Order: sequence, then C-alpha cells, then structure tokens
Amino acid sequence: MFLAEVIGTVVSPISVPELKGRTHLMVRPVTPEGEAKGKTKIAIDSIGAGVGDRVLVVDEGGSARQVLGDPDAGIRTVILGFVDSVSLHGKNVYDHLA
Amino acid sequence: MFLAEVIGTVVSPISVPELKGRTHLMVRPVTPEGEAKGKTKIAIDSIGAGVGDRVLVVDEGGSARQVLGDPDAGIRTVILGFVDSVSLHGKNVYDHLA
Amino acid sequence: MFLAEVIGTVVSPISVPELKGRTHLMVRPVTPEGEAKGKTKIAIDSIGAGVGDRVLVVDEGGSARQVLGDPDAGIRTVILGFVDSVSLHGKNVYDHLA
Amino acid sequence: MFLAEVIGTVVSPISVPELKGRTHLMVRPVTPEGEAKGKTKIAIDSIGAGVGDRVLVVDEGGSARQVLGDPDAGIRTVILGFVDSVSLHGKNVYDHLA
Amino acid sequence: MFLAEVIGTVVSPISVPELKGRTHLMVRPVTPEGEAKGKTKIAIDSIGAGVGDRVLVVDEGGSARQVLGDPDAGIRTVILGFVDSVSLHGKNVYDHLA
Repeated sequence: MFLAEVIGTVVSPISVPELKGRTHLMVRPVTPEGEAKGKTKIAIDSIGAGVGDRVLVVDEGGSARQVLGDPDAGIRTVILGFVDSVSLHGKNVYDHLA
Repeated sequence: MFLAEVIGTVVSPISVPELKGRTHLMVRPVTPEGEAKGKTKIAIDSIGAGVGDRVLVVDEGGSARQVLGDPDAGIRTVILGFVDSVSLHGKNVYDHLA
Repeated sequence: MFLAEVIGTVVSPISVPELKGRTHLMVRPVTPEGEAKGKTKIAIDSIGAGVGDRVLVVDEGGSARQVLGDPDAGIRTVILGFVDSVSLHGKNVYDHLA
Repeated sequence: MFLAEVIGTVVSPISVPELKGRTHLMVRPVTPEGEAKGKTKIAIDSIGAGVGDRVLVVDEGGSARQVLGDPDAGIRTVILGFVDSVSLHGKNVYDHLA
Repeated sequence: MFLAEVIGTVVSPISVPELKGRTHLMVRPVTPEGEAKGKTKIAIDSIGAGVGDRVLVVDEGGSARQVLGDPDAGIRTVILGFVDSVSLHGKNVYDHLA
C-alpha cells in the first residue's frame, strides 16, 4: 500500500464488463511529505475521492477484488481511504485540515 | 492498471494451449500526456484493439484470468478498454476524437 | 520479505471497512546494515511495532491476508516480526540490544 | 508477459520436489527489436526451448501453475511459446526464419 | 525465479506464528556469472542452505506457500534449490565443485 494524490480522470466507455460504471482516477504516488514520486497509475475509486485528495492505494488484484466485493473483478488498483494526517518520526508532515 | 499505446504485434504459432488463437499485442506504457515511459510488454487483446490505440492495461494474473473468463489461462497481461479521454487536474490532456 | 524501519504513522479515518481499526505504519526498507534504501510503504501492524523499530515486512496480498487471519482483507503490506539481530557473512551488523 | 532470449541453463540437482525433473533455462528480456534489457531470470521450460531461441515468458505464480498443469508447483517463471515474428508499427523487426 | 547467494541470517524471535521456528536467510541476487546485483531479500530456507551457498529463489506468495506445504503461511520468499552449475551460451560460468 502507498500514499498517493488523485491527479486526474480517465474516460474509457468501451471496455470489458468488469470496468463498466466504475470511476477511473489517476493517482500519483507521493512521499510522506507529499512530494510526487514514482509512476502514475489508474485506480478504481471506492470511497468517493476526487482530484487533489490525498489517499491510500493498494495495487494488488486479490486485495482489489476483496475491497470491491466482486470476486470476478479484473481489477488491480483501488483507492482504499482518505489520508487525514501523516506523522514522520513523531513530527506531523501532512494535515488535511491545515 | 496503467495507460498504454498499442505499438505492434507478436506471432507465436508454437505455444502452450492457453495462448493458442489469442492475439498478442505489444503495448508501451505512456504518461497521462501520452509520452512513452517504461518497458514494453506483451498483452492479450480482449476488446479488438489495434496498433495506435490508447488503451487501459492490467498486469496481474488473477485479473487477466477473470477478464478472459478462463480460470485456467496462464496469462498475466490483458488490454481492458479503449481510452477516450484523459483529464489531468481538470485539464484535458488526451482526446481520442481530437 | 524485507528488512525495514518503522518511521511514522498514517491516519485514515474514512476508508474501506477492511482497514477500519487497524494501525497504519510507514515503513522504510533498509539494507542489512540499516541504511535506508527504497520506497517508503504503508504497512498494517500485526505485532505492536512502533516508530524506530527494526522489523520484517511482507508485501504480498495473499501473505497479508493469512497473517491477519482475514481472507477478505484488502490489504497487501504487513509487519511480520521484530528483528533482534542481523548477521552478514558471519559478522553481526545489527543488534537490537546493543 | 515479455519477450526474452534463452541464454543459458542452470543445474540444480538438490531442490524442492516441485522442481525435480524440470529444465531450468536462463532467459534475458529483450526489446521488440531484440536488444537485451532487464534482469536475467530463471524460467521453467514448457515447450522444448533451447539456447538462442526467442520466446514469450510469463512471470507470475498463478499463470505458471496453470501452464504446468500442477496446482502445487512452487514455480513463478515459465516459457509459454516460441516467437516467430515481431512487428512494430506495421514494420517487421524480428523474423525467426530470416 | 532468480539466482542468489546466501549472505547472512536474521534473528526475529517475536513474530507472527507462521514465521516461528523457520530459518531466515539473507539472499542477494546474482548475475549468471555470480556478480551481486539487486536488492537483498529475506528468504525462508527449505533445503538446509547456509552462508556462501549459490541458490535458486522464488519470490511469490503462492509459490512459497506450496513449497512450504502450508497454505496458511504468510511468507513470500523461499529458497528452492542449490545451484551446482550455470552455463551461459554453452560456456560454463559457475561450477560449485570447481
């Protein structure tokens, strides 16, 4: 699992049935301090996230299928939760409300 | 899951039974803006894609088997859908029809 | 599996049900000698670890679900154990009590 | 899945039962044009490949177990098929018979 | 699967039940010629390997669980066999007895 920021959306009207009706968000991994790092991925939204949100993402098929409650989903990357705050060695380095 | 462009084809007439009769396409990962980035992979086509198409790809065995509807498929990489448009921070960065 | 140091915490009050009530720790992979190396990840604690602890981490969904005793957990990264000592070519390079 | 060239063999007489009697080949990933790129891996042969052959390889446990027809195989990397030709943007970049 | 050299040990007395009583070895991936390359990992020994041995390692949960004969093992990396010799393009590049 890793921290990421939602940076965009992808529209894919013609696709396999498992993806129909799902929201595809682009997520960019970030360091604990919030710096962009690593490859952008396409994730399925499961919590109502939007562009700009700091989120927790899982990138593994079995986990994704469990979270979506669909054992047949051909999906690997899913947004699991919103991140409210991040603390590094006891010091707050990210606060959603700040 | 990641964005990719279909860039070529692979012919493999002698193979394990699970691959026979399937179309093998070469896909190259691209950034949201469409710049090539990362290693080319061989994917199984599931939607009728061709060279030049922008597509959504999954690279995980469990997902691939679900999409192909074949629990016995020894296949890991599958094209899931066509990409019509990509938006980054609210700005359109790719439009298939443009 | 890899060696890591616990370096921080993440608070995620709004999330999928599988993550509720679990402790999210930031872990940074380290070399046998303890030098930081590689990307920070978010792991679920299963042993009561805290910031500063040297730990053994697994990063795979099936393993994570087994350790947590929950076949439905949409979780990939889990802390498996505390590391007491590390020996490299017969020479002690890390000792928790030293 | 990726393209690779078979570059060598590995002899491992003392091993877990799942590996006994199987041929271990060293495969090196190649670009569509055939240039070596990426880490050499050890793959199980399933089609009778030999040193110098261009092949299609899958690197995932579930896929490998399906191809080998053995749900208990503790094996991750398997050669799936011979590659006869590779076409890039409509231009032939590899032909086995050429 | 990849070639590796056993370079050390890890002691982890307080851990999840699945790891108790197992030997944790540090393995470093090597090239066919034996040069160290890539990240050191922690593997479970299944064959009686020791520091200095050249071994074959699998790094995938499903494979690891099969080899250990324990479907509940939360373990990803396992040593599969001893390597006696490695041949590259028909030329011997490693011989355990030499």
